[in-house]
Amino acid sequence: MSEFVRVALDAMGGDNAPHETVQGALDALNGSPALRIILVGQEDALRRQLKKCGYTEDVPVKESEDGSDWDENARLIIVKASELIEMAEPPVAAIMSKRDSSIVRAMQLVRQGKADAYVSAGSTGATLVGGQTIIGRVKGVERAPLAPFIPTEKGTSILIDCGANVDARSSALVQFAKMGSIYYKNAMHKEKPTVAIVNIGAEEEKGNALVKETFPLLRDCPGINFIGSAEARDIPAGVADVLVCEAFTGNVILKMYEGVGRAALHMLKKGLTKNLITKIGALLVKNSVKENLKVFDMSEYGGAPMLGLKGLVVKTHGSATAKEIKNSILQCATFQELAIGKQIEESLAGGSN
Amino acid sequence: MSEFVRVALDAMGGDNAPHETVQGALDALNGSPALRIILVGQEDALRRQLKKCGYTEDVPVKESEDGSDWDENARLIIVKASELIEMAEPPVAAIMSKRDSSIVRAMQLVRQGKADAYVSAGSTGATLVGGQTIIGRVKGVERAPLAPFIPTEKGTSILIDCGANVDARSSALVQFAKMGSIYYKNAMHKEKPTVAIVNIGAEEEKGNALVKETFPLLRDCPGINFIGSAEARDIPAGVADVLVCEAFTGNVILKMYEGVGRAALHMLKKGLTKNLITKIGALLVKNSVKENLKVFDMSEYGGAPMLGLKGLVVKTHGSATAKEIKNSILQCATFQELAIGKQIEESLAGGSN
Repeated sequence: MSEFVRVALDAMGGDNAPHETVQGALDALNGSPALRIILVGQEDALRRQLKKCGYTEDVPVKESEDGSDWDENARLIIVKASELIEMAEPPVAAIMSKRDSSIVRAMQLVRQGKADAYVSAGSTGATLVGGQTIIGRVKGVERAPLAPFIPTEKGTSILIDCGANVDARSSALVQFAKMGSIYYKNAMHKEKPTVAIVNIGAEEEKGNALVKETFPLLRDCPGINFIGSAEARDIPAGVADVLVCEAFTGNVILKMYEGVGRAALHMLKKGLTKNLITKIGALLVKNSVKENLKVFDMSEYGGAPMLGLKGLVVKTHGSATAKEIKNSILQCATFQELAIGKQIEESLAGGSN
Repeated sequence: MSEFVRVALDAMGGDNAPHETVQGALDALNGSPALRIILVGQEDALRRQLKKCGYTEDVPVKESEDGSDWDENARLIIVKASELIEMAEPPVAAIMSKRDSSIVRAMQLVRQGKADAYVSAGSTGATLVGGQTIIGRVKGVERAPLAPFIPTEKGTSILIDCGANVDARSSALVQFAKMGSIYYKNAMHKEKPTVAIVNIGAEEEKGNALVKETFPLLRDCPGINFIGSAEARDIPAGVADVLVCEAFTGNVILKMYEGVGRAALHMLKKGLTKNLITKIGALLVKNSVKENLKVFDMSEYGGAPMLGLKGLVVKTHGSATAKEIKNSILQCATFQELAIGKQIEESLAGGSN
C-alpha cells in the first residue's frame, strides 16, 4: 500500500460537475497532506475548471491505459475518460457499453491498484453495478451494501443497506450487521456500537418473512451488539448505531428523511414569512433555528461508502457541492488509515459464514 | 341497512381509554345526528366515565350474547365485554383466547349485522387479525389493507397498505390500487385520483422483484389512473393521491413521517428557546409556525380504514385523544353514506381478478 491515500474522483459525475468536483478535490488536497487525487474525466473541461479555480501548478495527464506507476510526486493528476454516464441510464448497460466513461475508468484504477478509493456524485446505479463488477467483492462477501450515515437527535446512525441489493437474503443481512459494526466502531470511535434490525414492531415475532428469518441469526451472531428491532419512528431519535435493513427499505428510509425534512422546512419558512410580525420574529430566531436544524442537512455527512469491496467506493449526492465532494474524499483517507476494509475482510473470511 | 350508521367502539382500547374514548363518542354523537354508538367494554368503568363527562341520560346495557335487535331509540348503548387485549399481546393468540374482550365483542357486533362499523385505538395487530377472521373479507378480496391518509404539502394522500399484510403478492397490490382509488375518490371528492407505486427510482426497470412484477399490472389495469413510480422523497410533497405499497414499506413510511416530524419539532423548539432573544422571536412567530406545521399533525386525519371487509374497520392511534376518536367515528358515517364498501365489493367482484 502506498503511504498516500490515492483517490480516483469521477470528476464528471453529478449535477454540478466539473466545477464542484474540481473545487472539492482542491479543497480536500488542502485539507489532508496524506491525499493524492486522480481527476478522471474530459481533459479540456478539467483543465479549464482547474484554471477557473485558480490552480496554477502543472497537472500531469495520463491515458487511462497507461501502464506506468502513478506514484509520482504530483498530488493531483488527470486520467482521461471521454464518455459520460447519465443519471437516468440503465446502469448495467451503461457500465458494459461506456468503457471510456469517467465512472468505468475511475473504477478500473481501483481495480488495478492504482487508486485506493473511488468517489462519485454520478449515477448511483452505475456506481453500485461497477463496484460489484469492476472492483469486485472481497472473498466471502455475499453482497456489498451502501451504508450512509444518517443524522439523529443523538448524533448519527448508519443505515445498511441503502440501495445496493434489493431482495437480499438473511445471510447477507447478517454480513451487513458485521460490516456496519466495524465501520461504525472505527469511523465514530465507539466500542460495541448497537445494532438493530429495522422492523414494523418491537417484538421478535413481528416483521415480514425476511426479518423473521434474520432476527434470530443476528441475536445469535457473535461479535455484534444486537439490541433487537428498531421501529422506523424511533430512527430519527437515534435508537441504534447500526440499522440493518434490506435495500428497498433502506432507500425508502433515506428518501423519507430527505422528503419529510424538506417539506417541514417549506412549511416552517411559510410560517416565518407570513406577515411583518412573523418576519421580525424570524430575524430573531433565524440563526439559532438554522443551527439546530442543521442536523438534518445530509451534506454535513460526506458520502455513503459501499462496503465489502476490494477497494473503497464512496457515493455522494447527485447534487453534491464542493463541500460534500471534499468531505467524501477526506472520508476515504480516514477509511484507509483505519484499515476498515482489511478488518471487514478478516471478519467475514474468519466469520460464521 | 339501518337509516342510522351504527358504530361499535372498542371503548377500552388505546392508551387513554376509557376517558378519551367515551368523550370522543359523546362528541361524535353531538357532531352527527345520523350516528348511533355502541360502547363496548367494562360496564362499571364506562358508566363512571359517562358520569364524569356529564352525560346524564339513561344508557341501556346489553349482554353481548343478547340476540335482540339494537335499533331502539337510544343513540348510545353499552355492550358488556370483560376482557382487555393489551397492545403488546401476540394478536392471533389474543383474538383466539380472549373471546370476551372489547375488540372481539365489538367485531362480533359488525359480523352479526348489529353494527355497521368498528372503531378502535387498541392493538393494531388484534384489529387486523380480527378484521380478517371475525368480520371477514368481501368475496374476491385477497387481502384487506390498512389505508391511512397522510398529510402532504398539497393536501393528503392515502398510503395503502400500511401494516395489514406483509409479503403480499402483486395481485393483492393491484386490488389495493383499485380499493384506494374508490376510497380516495369518494372521501376526497376527486375524480380519477392519481395512483403510484412506491419505488426506489422513477424508471419502470427499477425496484425489487415485487414492484417489477406489479408495475406492468398497474399500468394495464383499467379503471385506475396510474402515473408510475413514486420515490419516497416525493411523497411528502404530494406526488400522487393513492400510494400503493407492500405493508412493510407502508409501515416504514408512516413511522418515518411520525419520527422525522417529531425530531424536527424537537430541534425547532430547541432553536426557539435557546436564549432571551430567540424566545422573544418565538412569541412573534409561534402561531403562524404552528398553523403551518399542523399539516404534519396526524390527529387531524381521523383513523385508518381497513378496506375490503364485510363491514368498516377503523384503526386510530394508540395515543388517540377524544378528538381523534370523534373524527374516526364521524369518518364511519361518511364511509357508510357514500357506500364505499359496496363500490369496492362491486369493483373487485366484477373486476379483472
